[in-house]
This record gives sequence, C-alpha cells and structure tokens, in this order.
Amino acid sequence: MATAGKVIKCKAAVAWEPNKPLVIEEIEVAPPQADEVRIKIVATAVCHTDLYHLLENKNVSGFPTVLGHEAAGIVESVGPGVTEFQPGDKVIPLFLSQCRECRFCKSPKTNQCVKAWSRSNPNMMASPDSRFTCKGKKVLQFVGTSTFSEYTVLNQIAVAKIDPSAPLDKVCLLGCGICTGYGAAVNTAKVEPGSTCAVFGLGAVGMAAVMGCKAAGAKRIFAVDINPDKFEKAKVFGATDFVNPKDHNKPISQVLAEMTGGGVDYSLECVGNVEVMRSALESCIQGWGISVIVGWTDFQDLVTRPVQLIAGRTWKGSLFGGFKSKDGVPQMVKAYLDKKVMLDEFITHNMTLDQINDAIELMKHGKCIRTVLSVSPQ
Amino acid sequence: MATAGKVIKCKAAVAWEPNKPLVIEEIEVAPPQADEVRIKIVATAVCHTDLYHLLENKNVSGFPTVLGHEAAGIVESVGPGVTEFQPGDKVIPLFLSQCRECRFCKSPKTNQCVKAWSRSNPNMMASPDSRFTCKGKKVLQFVGTSTFSEYTVLNQIAVAKIDPSAPLDKVCLLGCGICTGYGAAVNTAKVEPGSTCAVFGLGAVGMAAVMGCKAAGAKRIFAVDINPDKFEKAKVFGATDFVNPKDHNKPISQVLAEMTGGGVDYSLECVGNVEVMRSALESCIQGWGISVIVGWTDFQDLVTRPVQLIAGRTWKGSLFGGFKSKDGVPQMVKAYLDKKVMLDEFITHNMTLDQINDAIELMKHGKCIRTVLSVSPQ
Repeated sequence: MATAGKVIKCKAAVAWEPNKPLVIEEIEVAPPQADEVRIKIVATAVCHTDLYHLLENKNVSGFPTVLGHEAAGIVESVGPGVTEFQPGDKVIPLFLSQCRECRFCKSPKTNQCVKAWSRSNPNMMASPDSRFTCKGKKVLQFVGTSTFSEYTVLNQIAVAKIDPSAPLDKVCLLGCGICTGYGAAVNTAKVEPGSTCAVFGLGAVGMAAVMGCKAAGAKRIFAVDINPDKFEKAKVFGATDFVNPKDHNKPISQVLAEMTGGGVDYSLECVGNVEVMRSALESCIQGWGISVIVGWTDFQDLVTRPVQLIAGRTWKGSLFGGFKSKDGVPQMVKAYLDKKVMLDEFITHNMTLDQINDAIELMKHGKCIRTVLSVSPQ
Repeated sequence: MATAGKVIKCKAAVAWEPNKPLVIEEIEVAPPQADEVRIKIVATAVCHTDLYHLLENKNVSGFPTVLGHEAAGIVESVGPGVTEFQPGDKVIPLFLSQCRECRFCKSPKTNQCVKAWSRSNPNMMASPDSRFTCKGKKVLQFVGTSTFSEYTVLNQIAVAKIDPSAPLDKVCLLGCGICTGYGAAVNTAKVEPGSTCAVFGLGAVGMAAVMGCKAAGAKRIFAVDINPDKFEKAKVFGATDFVNPKDHNKPISQVLAEMTGGGVDYSLECVGNVEVMRSALESCIQGWGISVIVGWTDFQDLVTRPVQLIAGRTWKGSLFGGFKSKDGVPQMVKAYLDKKVMLDEFITHNMTLDQINDAIELMKHGKCIRTVLSVSPQ
C-alpha cells in the first residue's frame, strides 16, 4: 500500500475536553509498531460508553482523545511481527483484548485478558500509548480503540478478523453493544430454556440482552424501561411483557414478583445506574435468581441488604458479554450471516462521521437505538 | 409413652426480653398437633445467631422466646398424620424446613423451602405459632426450634431423622453452624480442587468453612481473623496461611492480592459484618472469583463498587450451607460417623442447660468455638 510505513493524515472527531462537542480535525496516525495493526475504519456506531467518558466521567486526564469503540474496518498495514493479519483483511477493533497467553485467556471462566487496556490504566478510559497526534499534541486512544477516525492503530491482540463477506456497516455493532447484551444473557447469566427473565433498560445493549434471553429459550422476557417508546422494538427482539416503572407506585421488584409469582429467574441491568442494579437484583426470585450487571458506572456505590444474597440470589457482572473477544466476535459475525442473530434491526439512523455531534445528541435524548456513521469508503 | 398426648412441664431457658440474661423456668409444652413431632432435647449448642437475636436484633416483638436451634434429641411423641417418625427416633431439629413439595424443594438449585418459618415471618426470628407457655404467657419459638428446653415441638418437615448410633452430644452441631460453614464451601461456592480460598472469621462457622474448602481439595486456605488465638485451631481444620488484618496497614483485599498474585478464587465471609463482606468480595480474583456471604446481619447495607462485579467477581449468599435440610443433615451425620468430617474438634466446652448464661458469655467474648450443653439425659 502506498501509505504503509508512513504517517497518515486523516479526519477524526477529537474530544478536546469533557462536555464539549467533538471537533472534526485532521490528525496524524503513526505507522503500526511491532505487533500492531493499522486499520481503515469503514463504519462506526456510537455507544453510550463514548458519551459516558465525554459527559459523565470525572477523570479529566483522559483528554484530548478520539472516542469510538464499536466499529469495523479494513487492515491498511501491519507492524513487524504481525502474521495473523494482511492488508485488506476485514476486522473489528476490540476494546477488550485476547492475548491467548495469560492465565485469564487460558481459563474458560473469563474473558478478562490481563493485557486489556483497562488493567494497565485502571483509572482512565483512554490509553496514553497512542499513535495519534493533532496540532502537535498527543491525542489519547479511548479504550485503546478510537474509531471516530478514518484510521486507527491497535495491537493485534485487540483485533478480530472476520468473514470477508460481512457488511461492515452492520457488523460494526458487534464491536461492543450487541455482544455485550447478548453475551450477558447467554454467557454470563447462562439463561436456561423455559426461564423467566427481566431486562432493565432498552438501549441497544438491553435489546441485545432480550435477544440473548430469547435465543437461550426463555419463556417470558420482561422488558423494563421508563420510556415506553422502546417497547415496540423490544418485542421485535423477543420481549413478551412490558413494564414501565412509572406506571406503578410500588417498587419494580415488587411489581415483577407479583407478575411472576415470586420474581424472575434472571435479570440483566443494562442501564448503568446503581439504583436500577439494586432493583434488578431484588427482582430476582429467592433461591436461585441470578442478576447480571451489564451497564457501566463507577462513581457510585452499589448497595443492597445482605439478606438479598443470603436468600439465594447471585450477583454478577459482565464485560463484553463474557465473550473472549477474538474468538467470540467472528462467531457472532457468522451468526449474523447465518441469520441467527439480528443486527439490522438495531440500526435506527445512518449518518457520516461529520455528523457525529448530531448522533451524540440523538443518543443523549434516547432517540435512537444505534446510529451507524460511515467513516471511510471501502 | 406416659407423656404422650399430655402437656409436659419441663425446664427451659426463657429469654423474657432483649439484652437480659436468660432465666431457667418451668414451661408447659403442649402435645404435638397434626404433622408435628415433640422432641426431648438431649444436647444443644449455643450459636451466634442465638446471641444475635438476644443482643443485636432491633425487633423486640420476638420476645419472650426460648432460644437455641443447634441441637439433637429423641422423639417423645408424634401428632396425627406423622408416619415418618416414631417415639425413640434420634433426630436433629431444623430451623430450615424441607417440605419436599414446593417448587424450591423440587429444584436442585436451592434449599430454601417455601414453608420455612422465615418466609411467613420475614421480620421476626421467632415463630408466633408456638407450643410453649410459661407463667400463663405464650412463649415464642425462636426460628421455629427452641432447643434451650428439655422438650420442644416442630413440624415434621423441620426434623431430620439420623443414624441411631450417632452421639447426640456431638452431632447436635450439625443443626446449624457446621453444616452452614462446610456447605457454604462445598455446595454454594463449589470450591474446586487446587484452588485458593480465604475464610473470614474463625468461629465455628468459619472453621467449618475451612474444613469444607479442604474437603473440596483447595490447595491454599487463608484463615483471616483479628483474633490470632484462633489460628491454631484453624490449622486443625486445614488452613494453610494465617492473616491477622491488624498486622497490616493496608486493606486486607490488597494483602491477599499480593500474597496470591491477584486474589483468591473463593472467599467466605463467616462474620456477619458488612465491611468484612465487602473485603471478602474484593479479595477475590478478577475474572472468576466467587465470594459467599455466610454470616448473618441485616441492619446495614451491603456495599461495593459496580466494577468489582463487572470485573468478573460473583457475589452469593448461603443459608444453612445450601443443604436441603432433611436430606443433608443425615448425610453429614453419616460423614461424621465415617470420620469424613470432624465435629469433636469444634467443641471447646461442655456444660449443662443451667449454665446457659455462662455459655453465652464465653461466646460473646470469643472464648469458645462451641459449647455443648447437656439438656436431658438420654
């Protein structure tokens, strides 16, 4: 490729500081170093975690940065030592790595690779080891990915090679939200056939959790949201019952207990709110109920009473749906191509990278499930 | 029997009100009603839950009562409809029933029978459906058992028939603490061979949890207590490493993470303190650590940060060690007779029912593991 080994100047949406609109800038993307892959991003979606970092994260050290972590693209060039990827490969960048060598990767019990960016940078969501500069300043790579850019660079342990026939403007969703929700039901909660589930929060992650519960054979799936506009879409993914907490003047855990004769077998919190996490736990049936925290927040304490657990409930969390990323993402791409999981139905808006701030506004106000931005032409 | 069908006048230790010494009184024990069994208590131990109700419980409606729930005895007579028990059977009273008919009893996932006293009396630990009177006043049955009495009456779903060769002054311990701790490791945490465990709190329950970890094949068992006098005994049950939080000026979770290269695979909280519950969770390794709450408290909130769970830890609770009571207790009696579990080693003091207040003082000050009181002659 003409660009291999050279710095690429390209367009990216830079978050210069928290709580400000992103700015489309020309940035420089350095060539990939040893074990790294430089990727032309074709399509990226906007996920709530991008907004979280921009709008809610109290740690301002993570700026300037390029956000974006749910994307798909094509390998432009590879650094020394990379044999798994070739220019032209279709890939999905991974915010969670899979090195295949650490004791976490070697255990079937977890997907939390010891080399994940989050382990070395526990207090910030943007990796300081970045290949980006803009106007002479280093620009950080958000969760190691930074897909709101025409080009980005990742270590090969954080890149999944996918089926070359996959449509990138659809499978980009598998880079985060859909795997996160679907896997939380299938891999983390391990929903059983015939069971009763409740999904709290009907964004893309929650919708995907509904889809996961359905795929696992759940008999009843309660979709819970304070925005009833979401219910119609939740039905598409398999929800059977719809509960708006605003319609009830008692705790939602009590409402669900009454509707199910004691509580649900599984609950999935897909909001990222500690009060909802508590409600989700307490909505589970005594004895064997399993509640999984899927949404992300870390400013506030998670609280319940000990008796809630002593009564036989289990409280778990899920990161990237428990999928070992390099193994799981290509499998999910295949499941989409085989029509075993839906993706198109999550996409409510299509835009271009230039419209990133409009896409952020849509998500902020709960007006979309997923907006896919086209970034570079294939 | 000469007493069958008649009111029995006998000796019991009555708790007239919270925070006062128990009083040895003559009480009247009514004959068993339909499906009930009247039991002569031969031996009872004192468990921390008795003290909890007497000294810490804020709900004063549970008095007057007869405490005691860890005991063994002999069936004196049975009520109408009882076919499973005969006078003379050796039995252990159960604070957790097993009706074998409810959906909880029918599920292999839980031991939390729907007919348990705690379900119908969620806010008090003493059942108002009592067969006891004293000085003309109704006396409640603590957790449905009340074993600090020469005679007591239980529904047959809360009585386990045991091997007639079992020594009652030893197997009485299987009525609560030993099954609770041992089962929390074996049934609830499902400790795996070769794993690393930490047990917080080295009372009888914690010692039994250590024994359970060892039986399950744990490679390293950290015994954690602020009273180092307990370590020698913990070693007898299988502990390999000993940690006194007072010896360290950093959080115990950090100490354990450093000693184990990331945290333990399993932790068991056997204190009943919400701060310790949090420490136990956070001492588990990211990815697959499982923490089980075994100790009981319910005045305070259980708190952590969501990321602790999202990082792959699981938080569970255990009641009576996950044993289905009528099935599990006779099996544990057999395991003791077969020398597969220790019981004698838990007993540090032997007294009589008249000395109950001395036994309570010993436990209050952490001077005993278990005190066994002889109540009636066999």
